[in-house]
Amino acid sequence: MHSDMRFLLDLVIIILTAGIGTFLCNRYGQPRILGQILAGILIGPSVFGFVNHSNLINNLAEIGVILLMFLAGLETDYSELKKSFERSSVIAIGGIIAPFALGLLGVYLFKENVEISEAIFVGVILTATSLGITVQSLSEIGQLKTKQGVSILGAAIIDDIAGIIILTIVLGVFGQDHTSITMLILKILLFFFVLSIVGEMLAKFILKNSKIIRKIKPIYLLSISLILALLFASFASEFGLAAIIGAYFIGVIISTTQLKSRIVKEISRFGYGFFIPIFFVNIGLGVYLDQVVEYLGIAIIITLIGIFSKIIGSGAGAKLSGFSNRQSLQIGISMVPRAEVSLIIANLGLKTGFIESDIFTSIILLVIVSTILTPLLLKKVYT
Amino acid sequence: MHSDMRFLLDLVIIILTAGIGTFLCNRYGQPRILGQILAGILIGPSVFGFVNHSNLINNLAEIGVILLMFLAGLETDYSELKKSFERSSVIAIGGIIAPFALGLLGVYLFKENVEISEAIFVGVILTATSLGITVQSLSEIGQLKTKQGVSILGAAIIDDIAGIIILTIVLGVFGQDHTSITMLILKILLFFFVLSIVGEMLAKFILKNSKIIRKIKPIYLLSISLILALLFASFASEFGLAAIIGAYFIGVIISTTQLKSRIVKEISRFGYGFFIPIFFVNIGLGVYLDQVVEYLGIAIIITLIGIFSKIIGSGAGAKLSGFSNRQSLQIGISMVPRAEVSLIIANLGLKTGFIESDIFTSIILLVIVSTILTPLLLKKVYT
Repeated sequence: MHSDMRFLLDLVIIILTAGIGTFLCNRYGQPRILGQILAGILIGPSVFGFVNHSNLINNLAEIGVILLMFLAGLETDYSELKKSFERSSVIAIGGIIAPFALGLLGVYLFKENVEISEAIFVGVILTATSLGITVQSLSEIGQLKTKQGVSILGAAIIDDIAGIIILTIVLGVFGQDHTSITMLILKILLFFFVLSIVGEMLAKFILKNSKIIRKIKPIYLLSISLILALLFASFASEFGLAAIIGAYFIGVIISTTQLKSRIVKEISRFGYGFFIPIFFVNIGLGVYLDQVVEYLGIAIIITLIGIFSKIIGSGAGAKLSGFSNRQSLQIGISMVPRAEVSLIIANLGLKTGFIESDIFTSIILLVIVSTILTPLLLKKVYT
Repeated sequence: MHSDMRFLLDLVIIILTAGIGTFLCNRYGQPRILGQILAGILIGPSVFGFVNHSNLINNLAEIGVILLMFLAGLETDYSELKKSFERSSVIAIGGIIAPFALGLLGVYLFKENVEISEAIFVGVILTATSLGITVQSLSEIGQLKTKQGVSILGAAIIDDIAGIIILTIVLGVFGQDHTSITMLILKILLFFFVLSIVGEMLAKFILKNSKIIRKIKPIYLLSISLILALLFASFASEFGLAAIIGAYFIGVIISTTQLKSRIVKEISRFGYGFFIPIFFVNIGLGVYLDQVVEYLGIAIIITLIGIFSKIIGSGAGAKLSGFSNRQSLQIGISMVPRAEVSLIIANLGLKTGFIESDIFTSIILLVIVSTILTPLLLKKVYT
């Protein structure tokens, strides 16, 4: 009758260790997410094995990253985002070309008996910046709302969308999955079209009915915010995009209304108190250190390529669009994190036989090193 | 890649309809849980079938009822609870004997070709008061902290513990499951022993370190509260008790410290904004109306027995322990709700072949009618 209550203990361990990690990092001036990811690695299969990946934890983590991106959207300056579209695109393109090319080349040179499809697949994996880690890292050093921050966020989003398109192309050319590229791109365009119409209507509605809306009780406001964030997330996901992209843009839309600060307040406590730490701990839970030791050579090579190709590519893009050398370095480093999306694509690659387990393991090392290193490096280059 | 995001839409539908239900009930002076349970029935398999029972929803609902009981514990007057132990026991005993005896007798008389084990099993199912519904119904009319409210809560908890013991006995005598009764009772006693020691230590620790504790940031306080509630819930469940009993008692322990009001504030918004409505909606989701129509005759009989036997039994217990006629009626009605525990036991009975589907269906009708009727009746008899 009560045997399926194991998830309660899992949650206790996650909240407890995430809390301790956050507390220690705050105390010693380190980025919080570092503490939370390390907590996940510690309690996960790599070290103590207290908690396993489970559907429940995955779903709660997904809600966490949706709320994180919704908050990031709420804190984005909409006019700045529009202005930075060109800059963001150049940064994104640089941050796609360099990792793709260098990843492909690196695997081709350093791995024995490699097939071209495997090398290309690694290229695809290396293009995917982790929006969640980037957002949180920038937010912790107060750089999310600056001109640079907005350009980085825009670039990471374009990078994410381009990544999905490239992945679909690769799967279409080499694999079984012949999803039509035209259809996918049409769906993505349709998503942004519907989003802009619904968004404009919603923003107008809120502005017009400001008197009634001011009276909405906090608890209803929390419900309404959750509904919007989750609805647009699920909507984006239906249209072939990442769920977090939908949550981000509905956040941007609401950021233009007077509801912004109240919703930020409601969702912050709610998200940061439970769901968002679970997202970061869950990244740690997905890490299997023992495999890394087995393929250390190739893992180190791919990790180095993954990190430097992003810094070089995005950095060059930033430089091209007019940022200073120092700023371009900051932007390049901000784009380094690889996490959930890389793991998902790598998993897919392993299952479909595109990549072998040495490559999969290398991606895991890249995830660990890049997620741990980025917030630390960012703190350095911003001070 | 994004095909498993269906849960987001399920959550949107649940939060949206629960919000509408709550809003309408508030507006027309009806109890909130009514709106939430009806929302669940509407979106569940009985009517529109938008949302199905799922593991995720079940787990979130479990967290919801844990937070609800934790809050109930926090709002309980500890000295009043101790004082009311005797009264609560008498009410609980009355509320166990009458439903058990009348349930057994009713099924034996009104169902054809009935086996004695089936009649006894129905008796067991009818003893289980739903703590969650009772707590919320009392809380909505401001009667949770009164002398009567505390007696009712105590009785419902004793009822729950006794129910688990009786179920174990019945399964031991008639079924395959020969869990030792002595072991179970020892484990339950051990739970309360450990709880009282840990509780006393915790309360002393909080009182002694009040200066440090006053400085804890709200977000850490939320984490600490969640950890305590979920930990003791999982602890109770390990000891063979319902998880909510652990959450309730750790709430009672904290209610004696100066942290009480701060924790109530943190957990209220968090619980009522998301998890607790999911618990009530989920009860509605568990209801299959179409089956009820098929066995309407026996279902009505068992529902009437279920409702009146509790009012009579608990009411008589209340009268015996010195309450007035009116108060005894109020107490009797408060003990009427049957929900998650009855459904779980009925499910178990159906799976193990103790009861047939006509009986299972009858319990569903009892759950619907009693959960909808109780808050309405309570509002009447309290005003």
